[in-house]
Amino acid sequence: MEFSELIRTGQAQAELLRGPEMPPLRGTLCVTGHHLLLSPGPQATPDLWLLLLRSVDSIEKRVAGDAGTITLRCKDLRVLQLDIEGVEATLDIARSIEALSSLESVITSFPFFYRPKGLRLGEAWHFHPPERYYKRIAREVLLRSSQPLTGPQKLRCAADEELLRAVLAEARPGARGFIVDTRSAQAAKQARMTGGGTEAKAAYPGWKRLHRPLERGRPLQESFVRLMEACGDPEQSMDRWLSRLDGCRWLSHVKEALSTACLAAQGMEWEGACILVHGAEGTDSTLLVTSLAQLILDPLSRTMAGFQELIEREWIQAGHPFQLRCAHSAFSHTRSKHEAPIFLLFLDCVWQLGRQFPLSLEFGEGMLLALFDHSYASPFGTFLCNSEKERCLCEVRTRTHSLWSGLNQPKEQRKLRNPLYVPNPLAIWPSVEPQSLRLWQGLFLRWTHPPEPSEVAWEKVWQIATDQKTEGSQPTDSASEPQP
Amino acid sequence: MEFSELIRTGQAQAELLRGPEMPPLRGTLCVTGHHLLLSPGPQATPDLWLLLLRSVDSIEKRVAGDAGTITLRCKDLRVLQLDIEGVEATLDIARSIEALSSLESVITSFPFFYRPKGLRLGEAWHFHPPERYYKRIAREVLLRSSQPLTGPQKLRCAADEELLRAVLAEARPGARGFIVDTRSAQAAKQARMTGGGTEAKAAYPGWKRLHRPLERGRPLQESFVRLMEACGDPEQSMDRWLSRLDGCRWLSHVKEALSTACLAAQGMEWEGACILVHGAEGTDSTLLVTSLAQLILDPLSRTMAGFQELIEREWIQAGHPFQLRCAHSAFSHTRSKHEAPIFLLFLDCVWQLGRQFPLSLEFGEGMLLALFDHSYASPFGTFLCNSEKERCLCEVRTRTHSLWSGLNQPKEQRKLRNPLYVPNPLAIWPSVEPQSLRLWQGLFLRWTHPPEPSEVAWEKVWQIATDQKTEGSQPTDSASEPQP
Repeated sequence: MEFSELIRTGQAQAELLRGPEMPPLRGTLCVTGHHLLLSPGPQATPDLWLLLLRSVDSIEKRVAGDAGTITLRCKDLRVLQLDIEGVEATLDIARSIEALSSLESVITSFPFFYRPKGLRLGEAWHFHPPERYYKRIAREVLLRSSQPLTGPQKLRCAADEELLRAVLAEARPGARGFIVDTRSAQAAKQARMTGGGTEAKAAYPGWKRLHRPLERGRPLQESFVRLMEACGDPEQSMDRWLSRLDGCRWLSHVKEALSTACLAAQGMEWEGACILVHGAEGTDSTLLVTSLAQLILDPLSRTMAGFQELIEREWIQAGHPFQLRCAHSAFSHTRSKHEAPIFLLFLDCVWQLGRQFPLSLEFGEGMLLALFDHSYASPFGTFLCNSEKERCLCEVRTRTHSLWSGLNQPKEQRKLRNPLYVPNPLAIWPSVEPQSLRLWQGLFLRWTHPPEPSEVAWEKVWQIATDQKTEGSQPTDSASEPQP
Repeated sequence: MEFSELIRTGQAQAELLRGPEMPPLRGTLCVTGHHLLLSPGPQATPDLWLLLLRSVDSIEKRVAGDAGTITLRCKDLRVLQLDIEGVEATLDIARSIEALSSLESVITSFPFFYRPKGLRLGEAWHFHPPERYYKRIAREVLLRSSQPLTGPQKLRCAADEELLRAVLAEARPGARGFIVDTRSAQAAKQARMTGGGTEAKAAYPGWKRLHRPLERGRPLQESFVRLMEACGDPEQSMDRWLSRLDGCRWLSHVKEALSTACLAAQGMEWEGACILVHGAEGTDSTLLVTSLAQLILDPLSRTMAGFQELIEREWIQAGHPFQLRCAHSAFSHTRSKHEAPIFLLFLDCVWQLGRQFPLSLEFGEGMLLALFDHSYASPFGTFLCNSEKERCLCEVRTRTHSLWSGLNQPKEQRKLRNPLYVPNPLAIWPSVEPQSLRLWQGLFLRWTHPPEPSEVAWEKVWQIATDQKTEGSQPTDSASEPQP
């Protein structure tokens, strides 16, 4: 089907309300194959407002008299209101947005058409070969897998048993292993009924199984939805806010994820043990734990390049099904059982690390916000599809631009980097006490509670840091005067 | 009574535990008239550990075998543990601390003996003449008072009525006035029984009364105590923490105080109205509201000097009874009905302002922490006594040092000032939505959850800012090279 068949209207006059702190925009509204455009006319600044249709999470329309209102709730948690002249135009535009924002085809999605100036196709897709990483950490043994397929007959897999035996033998004499199962003991046992299961103790000598159940799937998605409902609650009492924050359990999930990552990291760092992490599929909470454990232990993963490499290796190449998990964010009324904000939970945990160790991550909050936005809707191809196999089929690497090439442009750096970064060779052990964890205001309240204070402070620190370099590079006579 | 009569022991060997992040200290423990000293011997660094006895909030002693343990809970919320050799020594030291930390005499308190190098007596006591301030804000009419003494007979006071009439007449033609009563309408009415009351509408034309009840006295103290119990709760679940944080209602008090200050400030700024604030005595929540309203509106009060002036004028000279209110902090078992952390609540509200406007206050969190510490126990005389009258009787201004002279020493500045400060000529309107307010971790979790992340970041920003000045002031040839 051609895009043009889904576009039911030409254009309409509209006013766009973008939240409490932004001035409204008036102009001509128009729907294209991938975007919603508002053109405020030749004199206005900015001259064009643009929204990727893919980033629309839910649409609500209302008409009254000869005008209508469309409310768009976006995947990046923005809420936009369009007041449109003409009832017919309103309904047509709403229908066009509905149809175009929910297209399932990957190869007609915007990344396949996006050709920004200054970037070349194919760039930055291959600059993170995992081999380099494996070589570097050859004696750091952190493994991940899916569950063993023991099933109701308690099948064994000789190759799997041999592999885990070899891991311990290679590590050092007498090395122990821990299998961190991210399901409860009961859930792991039940998984046998559907062909899964756990490692039998006798079959894996030297390995000890620990169960650290992490929430995933629908309960996690529900938690996100309820958190956003609480954030948008106009009722102003402190009691109600704290009780809703408690009720949605998001911060409990953050705490559990960080605790389990600490457990894995401590096993390696303090006991010199080999760690295998798995849940059921090995593509969700498994990745959450292994990637956080690496951030805790490995200073290189805390650099800008290392963090990109980590996400590429531990999430994208490891097969986190981004397209299924991030199909909708917190606002959509259509819910698939495959949706879950597990990558968002990872980003939140990284934010907590950055808050507790403000000098130790080379990237700042802006990087985490960008990753959240792009994982749900992006002009770049990095988070497309559900696996390497699907990406190969769609030729994502040759026909779309990599997010990393977009983010690594010099003009993007100021909002992504941490101006206070100082390389820290040590492990960073986060406090997981409930008193130490915070709601990530910069994300969950980003559009409703501006200006974000830390962002303002950040900009000022950049200014100070940049002034320093500029001053330092100019040998002026007046520089011999003490500065005011 | 001489101090020496209260000191029941010479010295003892002891080990001091100062919390999870600080190494223990071993050495000789000794009690003096005003201090507890631990001398770890000539080789050790630091060579002397010292605690002002006045800062002890509660003591707990335990003996077992031939040793004992004293737990000191301090007014600055620190918890210290002393493991002491000898049962008798333990009991004697505990009794000495008990007696000396609760002395009521002002003129034998430590500020009357404290003679630090580099400071001169009498300095910095008179550098905030309120006249200068009143001249500057002559057309900004914010008044505070105690309640009118109408009593059960509904007495009127001609002078009072004339004064408020004159205020409106002087302001501008048609000016309106608002009386912000920090009690509920019912509490204000009940106050008639004890000789107080409210302004009768007919007697004060042009003035409208608004009731904004703020918690004070015992409920506020209880809230502080319960907050500290929650902060010290070793139970690690997120649910329990959030429900205890909710239950103690501290953040609700912060929200109410800031909301009422915003109301007063909005009346002045947006409606050009005259504002009179009072509760009952005019020395507690009244000061909270007027001082916060000034910080919101007046850029000069947000400078280091202006903030000191504000505290001197709106709290100390206005007669906030510091000695009664700050007799104990959150740990003491002996409770007086006069104790209440109203000044702490003010500091918390200022911290919220600073968090929401990170560039607009010249002072940083360190200044607020110092004010909290010194208001409860201090070697300086600034927060001694309950009123100007008492301070004159005790000759506080000539016989003790001013806190401001202590804080304004150059060596103190780095921990007190905000390295990001940029003068902001505008009013700063805080968001008082529950989502925007935070627990002041730097204060309430200062000793139990180190290191405080923002403190680390602060130090780094100072370093960048200082490096900038140093580099700028050295004209070197190599400075023409771009800096790495």
